[in-house]
Amino acid sequence: MKRTRIAEVLRSGQIGGRYTVMGWVRTRRDSKGGFSFVEINDGSCLSGLQIIADQGLDNYEGEVLKLQTGCSIQAQGTLSESPGKGQKVELKAESIRVMGWADPDVYPLQKKRHSFEFLRTIAHLRPRTNTFGAVARVRNAMAHAIHTFFQDRGFIYLHTPIITGSDCEGAGEMFKVTTFDLNRAPEKDGAIDFSRDFFGAPANLTVSGQLEAEIYALAMGDVYTFGPTFRAENSNTSRHLSEFWMVEPEMAFCDLEGNIELAVAFLKEIFASVLNTSEEDMAFFNRFVDSSVIGTLEGLVSQDFEVMTYTEGI
Amino acid sequence: MKRTRIAEVLRSGQIGGRYTVMGWVRTRRDSKGGFSFVEINDGSCLSGLQIIADQGLDNYEGEVLKLQTGCSIQAQGTLSESPGKGQKVELKAESIRVMGWADPDVYPLQKKRHSFEFLRTIAHLRPRTNTFGAVARVRNAMAHAIHTFFQDRGFIYLHTPIITGSDCEGAGEMFKVTTFDLNRAPEKDGAIDFSRDFFGAPANLTVSGQLEAEIYALAMGDVYTFGPTFRAENSNTSRHLSEFWMVEPEMAFCDLEGNIELAVAFLKEIFASVLNTSEEDMAFFNRFVDSSVIGTLEGLVSQDFEVMTYTEGI
Repeated sequence: MKRTRIAEVLRSGQIGGRYTVMGWVRTRRDSKGGFSFVEINDGSCLSGLQIIADQGLDNYEGEVLKLQTGCSIQAQGTLSESPGKGQKVELKAESIRVMGWADPDVYPLQKKRHSFEFLRTIAHLRPRTNTFGAVARVRNAMAHAIHTFFQDRGFIYLHTPIITGSDCEGAGEMFKVTTFDLNRAPEKDGAIDFSRDFFGAPANLTVSGQLEAEIYALAMGDVYTFGPTFRAENSNTSRHLSEFWMVEPEMAFCDLEGNIELAVAFLKEIFASVLNTSEEDMAFFNRFVDSSVIGTLEGLVSQDFEVMTYTEGI
Repeated sequence: MKRTRIAEVLRSGQIGGRYTVMGWVRTRRDSKGGFSFVEINDGSCLSGLQIIADQGLDNYEGEVLKLQTGCSIQAQGTLSESPGKGQKVELKAESIRVMGWADPDVYPLQKKRHSFEFLRTIAHLRPRTNTFGAVARVRNAMAHAIHTFFQDRGFIYLHTPIITGSDCEGAGEMFKVTTFDLNRAPEKDGAIDFSRDFFGAPANLTVSGQLEAEIYALAMGDVYTFGPTFRAENSNTSRHLSEFWMVEPEMAFCDLEGNIELAVAFLKEIFASVLNTSEEDMAFFNRFVDSSVIGTLEGLVSQDFEVMTYTEGI
């Protein structure tokens, strides 16, 4: 039977319907009644699905009772209303297949809150946490909303160069890109001989696609970039990233008013879209990370923006 | 009056309706009847719009008769059926405003076919040519189709790192990224002391987001990357680019058959989408660049793919 994502089971699963789900075990609790609750998550949404594994299963003693956080399983069964608290539905398993074991003495993620500092040391596993999963889903929703916003308005998406020889108005310190052996680059007249480097000239990582976007705007009308950008600024704050994705629209035949209109519409549409498509993840952030985030976004969506001149602003 | 894009005028403009269009002059022909044909293009589609400028216009003698290829104008007027060959509609101008002049002695693009080698020397203007405009529109249509394909199937879009310390199975030669002064990098025990470079370790431009995508697939289920990738291979052929955008799906709980299914569906959907959304641009490529391109894509969309083992293949 084809796999159904947990997000789909929870959104539109039919009570009494048979489903196959696959995911990673978050918790297992054994009831004295001779069955176990196994909660699995497959990353398609924040919520997991509760699997009811009865002792009648062939591998109940041999495998189900050994399931631990991080094990990967396939469960096939019938969707039922859940009498328990915390979930509306659960899957009564007809079979459970273990696809991967996770030794609790070694597997570092357990059902508790881990610090970001600790998670940084296990970057290969942190997407399995609620926070990183929610970040990935919301980032995906925002990226999609950004493309949809511009495509709906007839903007052309550009891939501007990442490796570049220009420094775009000195927007920031740049990383150098080279194939020279460091400290063994050829010199000429006392300076590095870049004519012998890969591109025959000094090359850097872009700080902005603006110059190329302007060129295309002056041929295609309305364009946008959405790609990675770099800053070699040595300041370790949450406001300075050395690598980040940036959106840059450029419009020909547009004035300041049209620009303001686009910026306001952009913010409202992206935030409205995320509040709508990522309700569960945003509620999670609102509860555990920033209790004002939903209120702030709803305000930005529903209220008018004040427009003022720079002089008024300062 | 708000600007209407030429693509929209040609697709759904009403005969007798009044429109304001803006764009760049491709040609001007003066009729002995006391009026001029001014063809403008605004990049929203391959076709331009023919503007009929009558000698009755205030600035006919002073400006319209001086319009040359590359001038930027705004024309306001009424859409009419065109009695001439080559276009169905034309705009009878009530006013023409010149926004930018282009001196024909200096402006290098003229109404003729330029070689790619020449266009390379005027990269800031080549998006105004038919070929580069069509490439930009088709690339945009494909990028959008790629995102739509994966989003419709519940895949999570990932931005994997561009600057990386790993080299992903040696997929290719890598560019080095550094903030050291070349030939002045600090050394320790006879080797470069990367602990003092920006990231405290050697850093390169990614050759693939696969490793990070695999990590996320093993937490989120189905993911994809679509971002820039780099190869420092010094071979100047049309098959080797040092910078290009790559799509990499990764799926948990999937087998070879599911993988084949996805790959086939991907190709069929992207090609069908481009044939559908970019009909005019594809017809242009089919006529001037590769007379088999539409036939090839239609074949890929409509015919079954042959599936065979590697052993059968070789």
